Amino acid sequence: MQHKILILNGPNLNLLGERETEVYGKETLAGIEKALTKAFSKIRFEFRQSNVEGELVNMIHAARKKQDGIVFNPGAYTHYSIALRDAVAAVSIPVVEVHLSNIHAREDFRKNSMIAPVCIGQISGFGIYSYHLGIASLVRHLEKK
Amino acid sequence: MQHKILILNGPNLNLLGERETEVYGKETLAGIEKALTKAFSKIRFEFRQSNVEGELVNMIHAARKKQDGIVFNPGAYTHYSIALRDAVAAVSIPVVEVHLSNIHAREDFRKNSMIAPVCIGQISGFGIYSYHLGIASLVRHLEKK
Amino acid sequence: MQHKILILNGPNLNLLGERETEVYGKETLAGIEKALTKAFSKIRFEFRQSNVEGELVNMIHAARKKQDGIVFNPGAYTHYSIALRDAVAAVSIPVVEVHLSNIHAREDFRKNSMIAPVCIGQISGFGIYSYHLGIASLVRHLEKK
Amino acid sequence: MQHKILILNGPNLNLLGERETEVYGKETLAGIEKALTKAFSKIRFEFRQSNVEGELVNMIHAARKKQDGIVFNPGAYTHYSIALRDAVAAVSIPVVEVHLSNIHAREDFRKNSMIAPVCIGQISGFGIYSYHLGIASLVRHLEKK
Amino acid sequence: MQHKILILNGPNLNLLGERETEVYGKETLAGIEKALTKAFSKIRFEFRQSNVEGELVNMIHAARKKQDGIVFNPGAYTHYSIALRDAVAAVSIPVVEVHLSNIHAREDFRKNSMIAPVCIGQISGFGIYSYHLGIASLVRHLEKK
Amino acid sequence: MQHKILILNGPNLNLLGERETEVYGKETLAGIEKALTKAFSKIRFEFRQSNVEGELVNMIHAARKKQDGIVFNPGAYTHYSIALRDAVAAVSIPVVEVHLSNIHAREDFRKNSMIAPVCIGQISGFGIYSYHLGIASLVRHLEKK
Amino acid sequence: MQHKILILNGPNLNLLGERETEVYGKETLAGIEKALTKAFSKIRFEFRQSNVEGELVNMIHAARKKQDGIVFNPGAYTHYSIALRDAVAAVSIPVVEVHLSNIHAREDFRKNSMIAPVCIGQISGFGIYSYHLGIASLVRHLEKK
Amino acid sequence: MQHKILILNGPNLNLLGERETEVYGKETLAGIEKALTKAFSKIRFEFRQSNVEGELVNMIHAARKKQDGIVFNPGAYTHYSIALRDAVAAVSIPVVEVHLSNIHAREDFRKNSMIAPVCIGQISGFGIYSYHLGIASLVRHLEKK
Amino acid sequence: MQHKILILNGPNLNLLGERETEVYGKETLAGIEKALTKAFSKIRFEFRQSNVEGELVNMIHAARKKQDGIVFNPGAYTHYSIALRDAVAAVSIPVVEVHLSNIHAREDFRKNSMIAPVCIGQISGFGIYSYHLGIASLVRHLEKK
Amino acid sequence: MQHKILILNGPNLNLLGERETEVYGKETLAGIEKALTKAFSKIRFEFRQSNVEGELVNMIHAARKKQDGIVFNPGAYTHYSIALRDAVAAVSIPVVEVHLSNIHAREDFRKNSMIAPVCIGQISGFGIYSYHLGIASLVRHLEKK
Amino acid sequence: MQHKILILNGPNLNLLGERETEVYGKETLAGIEKALTKAFSKIRFEFRQSNVEGELVNMIHAARKKQDGIVFNPGAYTHYSIALRDAVAAVSIPVVEVHLSNIHAREDFRKNSMIAPVCIGQISGFGIYSYHLGIASLVRHLEKK
Amino acid sequence: MQHKILILNGPNLNLLGERETEVYGKETLAGIEKALTKAFSKIRFEFRQSNVEGELVNMIHAARKKQDGIVFNPGAYTHYSIALRDAVAAVSIPVVEVHLSNIHAREDFRKNSMIAPVCIGQISGFGIYSYHLGIASLVRHLEKK
Repeated sequence: MQHKILILNGPNLNLLGERETEVYGKETLAGIEKALTKAFSKIRFEFRQSNVEGELVNMIHAARKKQDGIVFNPGAYTHYSIALRDAVAAVSIPVVEVHLSNIHAREDFRKNSMIAPVCIGQISGFGIYSYHLGIASLVRHLEKK
Repeated sequence: MQHKILILNGPNLNLLGERETEVYGKETLAGIEKALTKAFSKIRFEFRQSNVEGELVNMIHAARKKQDGIVFNPGAYTHYSIALRDAVAAVSIPVVEVHLSNIHAREDFRKNSMIAPVCIGQISGFGIYSYHLGIASLVRHLEKK
Repeated sequence: MQHKILILNGPNLNLLGERETEVYGKETLAGIEKALTKAFSKIRFEFRQSNVEGELVNMIHAARKKQDGIVFNPGAYTHYSIALRDAVAAVSIPVVEVHLSNIHAREDFRKNSMIAPVCIGQISGFGIYSYHLGIASLVRHLEKK
Repeated sequence: MQHKILILNGPNLNLLGERETEVYGKETLAGIEKALTKAFSKIRFEFRQSNVEGELVNMIHAARKKQDGIVFNPGAYTHYSIALRDAVAAVSIPVVEVHLSNIHAREDFRKNSMIAPVCIGQISGFGIYSYHLGIASLVRHLEKK
Repeated sequence: MQHKILILNGPNLNLLGERETEVYGKETLAGIEKALTKAFSKIRFEFRQSNVEGELVNMIHAARKKQDGIVFNPGAYTHYSIALRDAVAAVSIPVVEVHLSNIHAREDFRKNSMIAPVCIGQISGFGIYSYHLGIASLVRHLEKK
Repeated sequence: MQHKILILNGPNLNLLGERETEVYGKETLAGIEKALTKAFSKIRFEFRQSNVEGELVNMIHAARKKQDGIVFNPGAYTHYSIALRDAVAAVSIPVVEVHLSNIHAREDFRKNSMIAPVCIGQISGFGIYSYHLGIASLVRHLEKK
Repeated sequence: MQHKILILNGPNLNLLGERETEVYGKETLAGIEKALTKAFSKIRFEFRQSNVEGELVNMIHAARKKQDGIVFNPGAYTHYSIALRDAVAAVSIPVVEVHLSNIHAREDFRKNSMIAPVCIGQISGFGIYSYHLGIASLVRHLEKK
Repeated sequence: MQHKILILNGPNLNLLGERETEVYGKETLAGIEKALTKAFSKIRFEFRQSNVEGELVNMIHAARKKQDGIVFNPGAYTHYSIALRDAVAAVSIPVVEVHLSNIHAREDFRKNSMIAPVCIGQISGFGIYSYHLGIASLVRHLEKK
Repeated sequence: MQHKILILNGPNLNLLGERETEVYGKETLAGIEKALTKAFSKIRFEFRQSNVEGELVNMIHAARKKQDGIVFNPGAYTHYSIALRDAVAAVSIPVVEVHLSNIHAREDFRKNSMIAPVCIGQISGFGIYSYHLGIASLVRHLEKK
Repeated sequence: MQHKILILNGPNLNLLGERETEVYGKETLAGIEKALTKAFSKIRFEFRQSNVEGELVNMIHAARKKQDGIVFNPGAYTHYSIALRDAVAAVSIPVVEVHLSNIHAREDFRKNSMIAPVCIGQISGFGIYSYHLGIASLVRHLEKK
Repeated sequence: MQHKILILNGPNLNLLGERETEVYGKETLAGIEKALTKAFSKIRFEFRQSNVEGELVNMIHAARKKQDGIVFNPGAYTHYSIALRDAVAAVSIPVVEVHLSNIHAREDFRKNSMIAPVCIGQISGFGIYSYHLGIASLVRHLEKK
Repeated sequence: MQHKILILNGPNLNLLGERETEVYGKETLAGIEKALTKAFSKIRFEFRQSNVEGELVNMIHAARKKQDGIVFNPGAYTHYSIALRDAVAAVSIPVVEVHLSNIHAREDFRKNSMIAPVCIGQISGFGIYSYHLGIASLVRHLEKK
């Protein structure tokens, strides 16, 4: 069966490959999406990004009927968006939280996630490969059910 | 005199009737709006909902010249949106904060409201009926002045 | 059916109409009780007030067999009385917490309620009308069951 | 020698057997008192209960001349009554604090005892048997002296 | 003019002269009252003591029409009784808070006073003489007005 | 050389001149923009305002190729928007944070800035003149490089 | 039926009778074990002590098939060992936490127990007799089931 | 016997009578000193004031051989000067802490005193009369010894 | 090239398959090890488990010369073992932290990791599959270098 | 009109140009004073610096009659000197707080200013130019009045 | 007299000379021990190291009869091991705490020592020389007695 | 080479030998200085003491050109003087912090040092001998460079 997965990216991730490359690497978001499509050829991906918290809420809502699951990098919203937490809790499809950098090794305010408690799990620190791991874990979760 | 009241709903409330129904009940937002229109037939309502914090700010701004008051369910933004607090403080019309669930009986981070201190008051925990109470209290406030 | 409702008031509320009238208004407690009796003519009210925490516990206990529900303004005890919280939790009849002033707009130590988490909900900030709203919400709750 | 022991119970314990029976069990306070009298036939018991913090202070004061020691379940007052702490410290007879439920396994605000630091010790979590243990430990303490 | 002053004492102060005499001294409450009557022969005193928080509220209420001011030792209630704070704030006569021991030199939880912020001032640490100072300061306050 | 500077304003600043004029003054945002254009005739300004956090992120992103620097009044988002902090950190042009009111003299939650740590500096409390100072400091910074 | 009970002691309890005797008494651990064996002649005891957190984990694991329950004095590990908490939670036999000294009357860091929340209950402050009470409560628990 | 008392005043008290007169009154420091000399004609006073923390330390040191006691208004240093606390603890003469305003009724950071725990007691809130009370309490203390 | 990887498990993980199976699943540790060996046939695994913090330190030390990297589930030690943090920081081979359960969705004290800040990253919440993801991420890391 | 302005510098600023030049730049305090005198030729400056908190208090007091306003860099005292806060509040001339470095981007204990709440505003992060901005803002403030 | 001193090292110190050499230096533990033996030729040393908290407890226990004192570097356990604190308090020989690095200049969680309060003193930050200072201070202490 | 070392003492240390001798010993500061001069005959000492924070700043500044290093006992300023921290950081000569008493074994507010993080290290608890250790460590540091 072909899984439909939304890869959802939060604020500032549109600048990937340009922004603080020593932290986030030199790959652009488009490059990542291309690589994921190639690596997981059996999955039907939708790729969305927004800098607007409420639009991310909208995208999660929209996914609940179209997708089998979400791999979600909430960026800075990870740490304070109760609205996104509620959105994830409100939809019945599974969500995996991923981060490029190791958020546990940065400023204190980046250690807490408001969203992870309502996700299946959290993957943090493996650069672009965090998305690969997130997709793999989501597929596993979908197939186990 | 016919009062003009904005019923303003924040993030994820568009999913009412579908989302965590054991917490929020089975009534949809449209259903609630219909019921309120019927129950308060003398009031001219405007109904708005947005998942975007800044759009809610816009809607509050817009209301300041068109409406007599606002019944506002800020959803998750209740707990961290200083922008919405400032918007309420910036407009001169009265605002009542309402919640479907009893926010005082949930996670600790839901106990504090950034917005209630600049409202007339807060009503929390009566399901759909919180809106009825909010409208009644706002009308009372308008007529007392 | 005629509902039996206890209107229970905590410490210092016996001084209503005299005490800090800019905060609490000029109506006396007797005046409020008269107004409520008139406004809700179908309800059989009992009105009780005490400044003693433990007597309020006693009154809640006594109500559990005689009343259908309680509209409770715990006054200052709201913020630290675990004994009253336990009393409300111990009886099976529904309780609504009400406040004359908007407790969320006052000193920090007045923002937290020890009692609201075990009530149906909380209504705060509408002056005497908080009691009207509390009664209405309780009746609604009783009739919905 | 026959020991004289006060079994002192705080707020809401008069509802034992009726209140939240899954937490506190189905035995009434009268039933407990009867069982204790039977189990410790050599001890001369006095049984007192009050929901009023200050009356419990009075009862502790009264006990200081009439009793050899106190087994005290302060109920909700455990967590905030400095008045009861001072009362226990003020009398020279030994006091043992007991709890039916395991207070360390409940809400955070129930973990701290204001009173235990001035007691001989604390026993928590063994249902009615906490009283048995409290009496046994008090007798032991009295006989060791 | 003869001033009418209520000397109001809170929990456990009825045990003065017997309780922890190394902290509170060997004088009984009756002895203190006698000494004060003698020392301030022009003042008409009323002396009240209660271990019950709510009764202290009642006594403050009662004083508001009969007395010119109150010298109040709230004992343990100093540190958590918002009800007593509200009672003091509710009456229009001036109140001075006094303590036998230096509360700032004891356990951390005794450093904060919930009541002092609504009093004229606080006097702490001078044993029985704290009452003398409290009366002197109250008289001064009454005469300055 | 002519500097290109973005004057970026956050939530509720569109209501300037109307909103809490005792705090923010009577000048409108349009009036401020006109005054700045006149005062700094050599600078090519772009003026943007949004109530939406994510749109402010977008505007900062957009500025990174078109502008030499940004004078940014983040309004209420100052205190919690990690997304805006990351946006400022992500672009290589310098940013100066300005505030009309003295945020250090207001509510505690307004004292901390999430954004200032990644700006050149912060200017707070000089009314409209804060923008003048911000522009002057930015020009100085650009010319020093 | 003969109960099999493990008496498990944590760090530094091997020095009993020698270490800070004014706090812990003059009885050695061997002496205590002998006294318990004598006092509870119907119980088959195993006595274990270790200073190593992980060995205590091992001993709890080993007990899960051999014993009916554990009386556990975790010593200093009480206050920070999540590993021991998880070990107690992982085995299905009941555990009672005991302490020689009254931990609630000592340094602040000794007031919290990481382990008590997953035990039946906690007994603290009765010297050697705490073990007697712990055994009695465990037997009662086993026989009630 | 004639007592020798140092009246020691800390920072900004030299501006008394000019500075925030609604808080501190219109009397100058010289006026206060004159009034005290007159009111306590039997006492030999020394009056010192300094805005420098370390000079206040010096003055306390110097007093230890020349004076019988100190009435000390440490002003702003009350709340953070451990150096002054240590100076008071280092000298063997008694010290009484006084404040013109009721420090318990002001900003939170003024509620705590670093110095009061090593004084006999604290008097706060009675304007100039706080010095009178402080002197009276010190004399009493000296004569009681 | 064949990678040598240590799979290191902390306290209580030896009870997998038996302990709280609703949280940790029904697979035993041996079963997991077998499955991993099969799934990653090209990797040379060493499997170690200990309940003793210091032995885990030893195992990490030992691995620094024999292994290419470590997949580490520190169990309860995650949250307080600075010794393990230092051990990971002390060895030059890469370490990935994995958890069976979603630690961000459990008790507050399980949200913080002392060890993750010195690892490459953290994977949490995917049951046994967390080990698969950890190994995959470690291999990726080793091959990228 | 010629404004009289005191440029007041706190502890360690006498070492400017020598101390941590990567943070504070290479300009000496004398150099800065010369530059300011030149840049603002119409202003009559007084330049003062002290490492002693109380002398800074004295200088502020002295300025109240001689100067029109103060540009104040309190250095390390910014973060804990309530004495300086009170001095600023005690004088009626306006004060602007300036900092060379961006205090919001440094250690946490440098983020809070005890003094800014009683100043007109705060300018932080622009090196020597912070003084220019401070003078400009003060002049503007003086002329607006 | 020849002193017998135990040099006791905690977790990860066995890796000295290899581990983070920029922090801990290039000397191995064996090298340090050799140097100390040579430098203090009159002292009879025993050198012990363990990564296991409980074994360190054992070693401290063992030393109480064989040694005159202990120079103890508890490594990471410094910050959380109440078991080691209790072990040091339980033995009657003097203990000096030493650290290679300046723990006060590192992460916040390394600033607090659970063990230092029960030692004679603490020496931190002088590399290998911290051991020399520790031995010298211990010898001094032993000879002073 | 002869080292030049400043022995700098903070507030209240001039009272050594007289003040709280059970804590600080009976040796006077002059006596200590004489003993140090004798014990370290090759070192050229300067001895300074002040109770004034800012004078200590001045003395550190003055030392930066005349001395090779400083042994500094900041007394009470240890715990709050950011000005002294900045002074130590501002000069390029090495500083060792010493304390007579074990500050880690006293009140909580004495545990933290604002100054130690910018020193080489800290020595605490060895009475007068702390100075000996401090000098030895400083000499070692100077000779190692």
